[in-house]
Amino acid sequence: MNYGMIFYILGMASGFEALFLLLPILVSLIYGESVLSSYLISCGICALFCGVSTLRKPKKITLYTKEGLVAVALVWIWFSVFGAVPFMLTGEIPNFFDAFFEVSSGFTTTGASILTNVEALSRASLFWRSFTHWVGGMGILVFILAFIPNKGNGTIVHLMKAESPGPNVSKLVPKIRYTAAILYAIYFGMTLIQIILLLISKMPLFDTLCITFGTAGTGGFSIKSDGCAGYTMLQQGIITTFMILFGVNFTFYFCILKKKIKQVSSMTEVWAYLAIIAASILAITFNISGGFSSLFQAFHHAAFQVGSIITTTGFSTVDFNQWPGFSRTILVTLMFVGACAGSTGGGIKVSRILLLLKGIGREISLALHPRSVKRVRMEGRTVETEVIRSVNAYLALYMIIFVASVLIVSLDEKDLVTNFTAVAATLNNVGPGLGLVGPAGNFSGFSNLSKLVLSFDMLAGRLELIPMLMIFVPSVWSVKRKKK
Amino acid sequence: MNYGMIFYILGMASGFEALFLLLPILVSLIYGESVLSSYLISCGICALFCGVSTLRKPKKITLYTKEGLVAVALVWIWFSVFGAVPFMLTGEIPNFFDAFFEVSSGFTTTGASILTNVEALSRASLFWRSFTHWVGGMGILVFILAFIPNKGNGTIVHLMKAESPGPNVSKLVPKIRYTAAILYAIYFGMTLIQIILLLISKMPLFDTLCITFGTAGTGGFSIKSDGCAGYTMLQQGIITTFMILFGVNFTFYFCILKKKIKQVSSMTEVWAYLAIIAASILAITFNISGGFSSLFQAFHHAAFQVGSIITTTGFSTVDFNQWPGFSRTILVTLMFVGACAGSTGGGIKVSRILLLLKGIGREISLALHPRSVKRVRMEGRTVETEVIRSVNAYLALYMIIFVASVLIVSLDEKDLVTNFTAVAATLNNVGPGLGLVGPAGNFSGFSNLSKLVLSFDMLAGRLELIPMLMIFVPSVWSVKRKKK
Ligand SMILES: [K+]
Ligand SMILES: [K+]
Repeated sequence: MNYGMIFYILGMASGFEALFLLLPILVSLIYGESVLSSYLISCGICALFCGVSTLRKPKKITLYTKEGLVAVALVWIWFSVFGAVPFMLTGEIPNFFDAFFEVSSGFTTTGASILTNVEALSRASLFWRSFTHWVGGMGILVFILAFIPNKGNGTIVHLMKAESPGPNVSKLVPKIRYTAAILYAIYFGMTLIQIILLLISKMPLFDTLCITFGTAGTGGFSIKSDGCAGYTMLQQGIITTFMILFGVNFTFYFCILKKKIKQVSSMTEVWAYLAIIAASILAITFNISGGFSSLFQAFHHAAFQVGSIITTTGFSTVDFNQWPGFSRTILVTLMFVGACAGSTGGGIKVSRILLLLKGIGREISLALHPRSVKRVRMEGRTVETEVIRSVNAYLALYMIIFVASVLIVSLDEKDLVTNFTAVAATLNNVGPGLGLVGPAGNFSGFSNLSKLVLSFDMLAGRLELIPMLMIFVPSVWSVKRKKK
Repeated sequence: MNYGMIFYILGMASGFEALFLLLPILVSLIYGESVLSSYLISCGICALFCGVSTLRKPKKITLYTKEGLVAVALVWIWFSVFGAVPFMLTGEIPNFFDAFFEVSSGFTTTGASILTNVEALSRASLFWRSFTHWVGGMGILVFILAFIPNKGNGTIVHLMKAESPGPNVSKLVPKIRYTAAILYAIYFGMTLIQIILLLISKMPLFDTLCITFGTAGTGGFSIKSDGCAGYTMLQQGIITTFMILFGVNFTFYFCILKKKIKQVSSMTEVWAYLAIIAASILAITFNISGGFSSLFQAFHHAAFQVGSIITTTGFSTVDFNQWPGFSRTILVTLMFVGACAGSTGGGIKVSRILLLLKGIGREISLALHPRSVKRVRMEGRTVETEVIRSVNAYLALYMIIFVASVLIVSLDEKDLVTNFTAVAATLNNVGPGLGLVGPAGNFSGFSNLSKLVLSFDMLAGRLELIPMLMIFVPSVWSVKRKKK
């Protein structure tokens, strides 16, 4: 393990966190809040650590694959630990496990909360909480990587691969820095448009910023106890639209900008994603219509909740925990499906589901015609066997982490629906589940052990499982680096 | 589609069902029950259909793979339809969907029941219900195949492959008839030993036969409203032991009989199966110990329930729906794990779980050392890539059937735990679930649509998914057979 380089990267990460913390400092200055000192101290700690650990540049800057994976996991844990400091200092979330849960929930864009009364928080803390979504949505490492000295692109590719969500079948352009720049321009641009639209709809500026951060990162922390229920239909409609837009593979927008119409029409994942959304909204609208004054009302709330859950945002306008079982089952299914690869959303991802289906199709076809050769094709290309194999292994690993988590969490003796959906909502980075962790509930009732496991699940879900597991592989931590 | 041959096979199946129906006829004669006439008529219908459809031998006796798969599915559906006739004639289960559910639950060795008061049934019907488990456990087709005219072994191999549970890594002996004979000798022998032991423990003969049929087939229909709670500790202990024994891959016993010690010790699946049982019993014993008068009592009931659930038998001595969440979660997990391949048990099967784990291990190892070549080994052999791939496709297909079933069943507006475990209990051929379908409940509350879906799941689970899906492939039904 190249400890020198890892230490250096963690230092850089702290430096960025110090910069990010300037924003809540600004907010507390504007609102004249007493939490200012806590945020100043937190910012200072981050800056100090950054200074110490980046004093010397490491001798070797290359990282092996496994070191890269561990580095990614450590950076995200590090960010969450340092991000939790202000909450503990202000006394708003005194317990470390709670604060760590809340902040990793922020950075992983999960949006699951242990707060029983979110409106009691200071403006600075509300802002910080929502801002972590926006940072987490675009990925932490990209910033760090831009400032790391490197000659080849080897290290960067390893790290970016580990952080980027989903099996990206198509590649934009070979140059990775250029690709990243385009994707982040799209991210910034769409964020800006949403801010402008919400301001036009007369949402207060503070709400607009926090809600937009939560939408863009598909995070879902809300700054009101009733979630998004208090906003107007128009504002909710804008949020619905942007949630769905941020769940689309960003390559789609890139192709639209470049007017690559043929490529746009062949992006099966995006069309499947939109088809699933349409079908789910339709089914739920009719299932819940009895509880609303008009069919349009039912449609409006069905669309918001479906958009929120499939993109793993987790905002809510109604307590869907009270909905009929059929609608709740659809929503739980959507939690697992998740958004498109290459978006800010979580879950298993639509592209993986499509690849799984195609894999099944091939298997059945082989059962019928044992001697035929069948290739799996997607988006106009032949999918390599390795991709299918790794998608299958991903699913299996996912299920094992899922079951293990449910088993540990069930030691708390909550009901089974709460346990099951708490793990589903954290591992898929959704936020709210059903039962005690439904939209009207929160995660405060769990033990510290469960909170730690659920925090692990959030990080594992955001980093696509493998990096977080590397932490438990002893050989990764050996000081001596084997020559291969 | 070779309709002639399929029709012939269905005729043979009816003939065997007529023979099997002689047993409940005998029971009703012994107890002087009025249901005798209903069973005589049912038997007559089966015999008549058999006579008509086997009058002429079909011209072509070969079946293509897909025809073989459909034939298997149809035989099992056929068996369940004809097996349901006596229940409708006696008026004990007048609704067709109920009767079909109950009998397919019997033949698939699921043991899920729609009966609210099982003790109201006639002796003949109780016997028939339990006997279907024993028939289903050994497989219906084997008998039919022994009587089908054939020169090559092609047809037989197709059909047996479709009916035999689990990915059987090791093959016993090349000759398939000889293999089958040995496995069924073991099945008969173990059944006989359990009958003798239960009789020695002073269980009444009728109970002994019904319970043993349910144990051997890992079925789990009970003939008392309180399940197995009324039997003595010794009798429950005997049942526990035999449930676990019938969940072992029968090849294991074959190797023991042949004194192939080396092969016995290398059967990873069996040892993993026993280890999972031991760990689960231990965990549950401590979790439930507070509710029992002694640790031994807790151990006794933990062992019974664990043995019953992992082998997918489904007998119960206590209402485990009342147990703490941790224990219930373990039991639900065991439902999915299931027993060994090559046993009479259902579920995903321990060998598939092991192959999934090994697949994950290889994927992680490849992530760490991208250039290494890694082969998956199990039980001393290299596992072919195709086996891993088909196990992965199996899991994916399993999950899709699972989700689709839960969605349809959730239209009935039961609670989520009931819906989830109802599907888990039927698709894995377990029998009881949690909530309304717990050991103290039953499946009577579901709509006809849900009962049909759950019946489909039982058949799909017993036949390892693919055959039942073939029914929905239109090209399979085309009259014209393509030359390949
Ligand atoms: K979220
Ligand atoms: K069973």
